Amino acid sequence: MENFTVYNPTRLHFGGNIINNLGTTVKQYGKRVLLVYGKGSVKKYGYYDHVVSQLQESGLEIFEYSGIKPNPIIEDVEKATIIGKQNNVEVIVALGGGSVIDSAKIISLGIASNENPWDFMTWKLTPQKAIPLVTVLTLAATGTEMNAAAVVQNHSTGQKVGYVNPLMFPKDSFLDPSFTVTVPKNYTSYGIVDLIAHSLEAFFGQGEPSVIDQITIDIIKDAIQFGPLLMDDLTNVELRAKIMLDATLALNGLTSYGKKSGDWGVHGLGHELSLLFDTPHGASLSIVYPAWLKLQKNRIPKRIIKLGKGLFGVDTVDETIEKLMAFFMKIGSPVSLNEIGLSDDSRSSILEQFKKNNVSGMHHNLNEVDHKKLVNFMLFQ
Amino acid sequence: MENFTVYNPTRLHFGGNIINNLGTTVKQYGKRVLLVYGKGSVKKYGYYDHVVSQLQESGLEIFEYSGIKPNPIIEDVEKATIIGKQNNVEVIVALGGGSVIDSAKIISLGIASNENPWDFMTWKLTPQKAIPLVTVLTLAATGTEMNAAAVVQNHSTGQKVGYVNPLMFPKDSFLDPSFTVTVPKNYTSYGIVDLIAHSLEAFFGQGEPSVIDQITIDIIKDAIQFGPLLMDDLTNVELRAKIMLDATLALNGLTSYGKKSGDWGVHGLGHELSLLFDTPHGASLSIVYPAWLKLQKNRIPKRIIKLGKGLFGVDTVDETIEKLMAFFMKIGSPVSLNEIGLSDDSRSSILEQFKKNNVSGMHHNLNEVDHKKLVNFMLFQ
Repeated sequence: MENFTVYNPTRLHFGGNIINNLGTTVKQYGKRVLLVYGKGSVKKYGYYDHVVSQLQESGLEIFEYSGIKPNPIIEDVEKATIIGKQNNVEVIVALGGGSVIDSAKIISLGIASNENPWDFMTWKLTPQKAIPLVTVLTLAATGTEMNAAAVVQNHSTGQKVGYVNPLMFPKDSFLDPSFTVTVPKNYTSYGIVDLIAHSLEAFFGQGEPSVIDQITIDIIKDAIQFGPLLMDDLTNVELRAKIMLDATLALNGLTSYGKKSGDWGVHGLGHELSLLFDTPHGASLSIVYPAWLKLQKNRIPKRIIKLGKGLFGVDTVDETIEKLMAFFMKIGSPVSLNEIGLSDDSRSSILEQFKKNNVSGMHHNLNEVDHKKLVNFMLFQ
Repeated sequence: MENFTVYNPTRLHFGGNIINNLGTTVKQYGKRVLLVYGKGSVKKYGYYDHVVSQLQESGLEIFEYSGIKPNPIIEDVEKATIIGKQNNVEVIVALGGGSVIDSAKIISLGIASNENPWDFMTWKLTPQKAIPLVTVLTLAATGTEMNAAAVVQNHSTGQKVGYVNPLMFPKDSFLDPSFTVTVPKNYTSYGIVDLIAHSLEAFFGQGEPSVIDQITIDIIKDAIQFGPLLMDDLTNVELRAKIMLDATLALNGLTSYGKKSGDWGVHGLGHELSLLFDTPHGASLSIVYPAWLKLQKNRIPKRIIKLGKGLFGVDTVDETIEKLMAFFMKIGSPVSLNEIGLSDDSRSSILEQFKKNNVSGMHHNLNEVDHKKLVNFMLFQ
C-alpha cells in the first residue's frame, strides 16, 4: 500500500426531504447568498422554487447567477464572481449537477480574492481562502458534491482544466434522490458512465491492490446492476438513490485510499473531445475507456482481468472489454466517435489536440503513437 | 435506503514514516501538549521516544498522563483532565490503542470545560467544546482514530458507557502500520475480531441493503483472508497495514451509510462481560457474536445467509455461524465463556448484569428470555 492521506470535511445530507434543512444550514455561514444554477431545468421542475423558499424562510437575501453550461466555461465563473463581490455575498448555494457545482467552487475562490480565478486553476496563483459553498445536487455523476475538485473550460486558451484544492470542499451537500428523477435518459446514462469511469481511474492508478480494489469493484458492480433498471424506470427514487450514492462513493476519496494517484488518462482524453466537439463528459468517457483498455491490453493484462473477473466473472482481457462496451451500449452511451457523428476526417484535429495539451495519464503514460492507436480504436470500435 | 448524514473531518495520515509530520501537525493547534498513553509498552518498543522527539523538534512543551488501562476507566480520565487543566495544555496527543484514544477524547471535553467529564458521557450535561486531539495509533481494532465515539468504564456505578459527539473527532490521526508490529498475538486477534464485529453491527443495523452491504462484507472478507496470515507473521508490515485499514473502514462511518442505525446489541452484551470479568473487548465479542447469531437464527435467516454467502460462499444460517466461529477459533479468540475460565456458576451474575443495564440492540431488541438463551449459547458453544 502507498502512503496516503484521507481528508474530507464535507457534510453530506442524503435522503428524501433532506432539503428542509437547507435554510438553517446555509444561514450559519451568512445572510447574503449567491445562488448559482444552470440553464433553467431547475426552474422547470420546481427545484429552484423549493430551494428559494427554503432560503427565504430562513430570512436569507438571495443574489443569483444563472446560465452555467453543461461543459462549464471560465467566462461564467468570472461573471458570477463579479456579481458575488458586488453584492458582498457570504455564502454560495450551487443548485445543479457537476458543471454548476464545479463552477461554484471556483467562484468561491474568486469571491474571496482579488485575482482572476483562472489564474488559480492554471497554478499561476495560489488561493488563500474561499467563501463557504453549500450544494444541492440534481445530477448523480461527477462526485463533485463531496470532493475538492473542479473542471472548467477556457475556449480562449483551448484548455479544459481540472483543479483540486481543499479550500473547495463544499461545507454541506444536500442529496435528495428525488431531485434527480427528471434527469433525461441520455444524461442519466452519462452519469452512470462517469461514476464508473471515476472508479476505473482509481482502479488503474498507482499503488498495490488492497481492500479498496474490491470496494471499487463493488461500486462499479452496483452501477452495472442497477443502472439498466434505472434506464427503464427513470422516476424510480430508490434506483436514483442507489446511483446517487455510487456516484458520490466513486469520487469522494475512498477509491484512492492506499494509492499514490489515480490514472486520469481517460479523463484527459475525454476532456479534449468535449473541448473540440462539445461532447457530453460521460459520452466522451464511454468512447475513450474501451479504446484505452485495448491500448493497455498487453501492458497490464492481469489488472484488466482482475476487473473483468470482479465485474463480470470473465477471465480474459478481451471479454472484459467486450462486456464493458456492451454495458455502455446497453445504457445508451456511445462507444465510438462515429456514434457522435464523427468520421475519419476528425482524426487529425483530435490528434493535434491530444498533442497540443500533451494528454497522458498520471500512472500510465501516453505518447503520440499511443494517441494514434487510441483514435483508431475510438473510430472503429 | 434510510436518510443519513456523512460527516467525518478527521485527517488521516497513513503509511510508513508518516510520524515525521507529527510535530508540525500538532504545533498548529498549540504549544502546550498533553501526551496521553498507557502502561508502558509504548516506551518498551520505542514509540514513545519517537513521538516525544518529534514533538520536541517542533519546540512543543510536553505534559504527560500515563497508565490508561486496556478497559479504560473514568478515574484516569478525571486525573488526566486535572493535569491538563493545571498546565493549560492546548492540544492532546494520544499514543496508543482504543483505550488511550477513547480516554483522550473524553479528556479533550473535560479540559475545555469546568464539568466532570462523566456527566457528558451519561448525558447529564452537554459539552460545548473540546481541545484539539491528535492520535498516534498503536493497535488496529476499534476504529476510534477516525470517529467521534468513546467507551469508558465506571466501576463505581457499574457501567461501561459508549458516547458519541462530533466534538470528539480527532483532528489528525497518524497510522503507521509499523507501530503495530509489536502488538502481541492475543491482542492482534482481538483487534481483528473487533473490526469484524463493528462491520457486523452495521450489517445487522436498521436500513434496506445498498452497495454498502457489499462493501461491509468485503471489509470483513479482507480481515478473514489476511488476519490468519498476520497471526503467523506478526511483524509483517504489509499485513499489519491491511488490517489497520480494515479496522478504520469498519467504523469510520462508511459501513453505516444508508442505515438508520447499527445494531450494537453484541457490543452492549460484550461490554457487560468486560465490566464483570475484565474480559478484553475483542475476546468478549468473539464469544457473544456466535451466540447472538444463534438467537437470531429464525428471526433474520435471510440476512444471516446473505452474510454467509458473501463471506464464505455457504447457503445456510448454521454454516454461516459455524464458519464464523471457526474463524474466531483459528485466530485464537475465545468463542465460549468456558474458554475465559467461566462456568455455569457465573450464569446468574451475568444475567443480573444484563438485566441491570437493560442490554439490548438498537434494531434487534433483546428481552430477559433472550438474555437467558444468549448466556446458554455462550456457555456451551
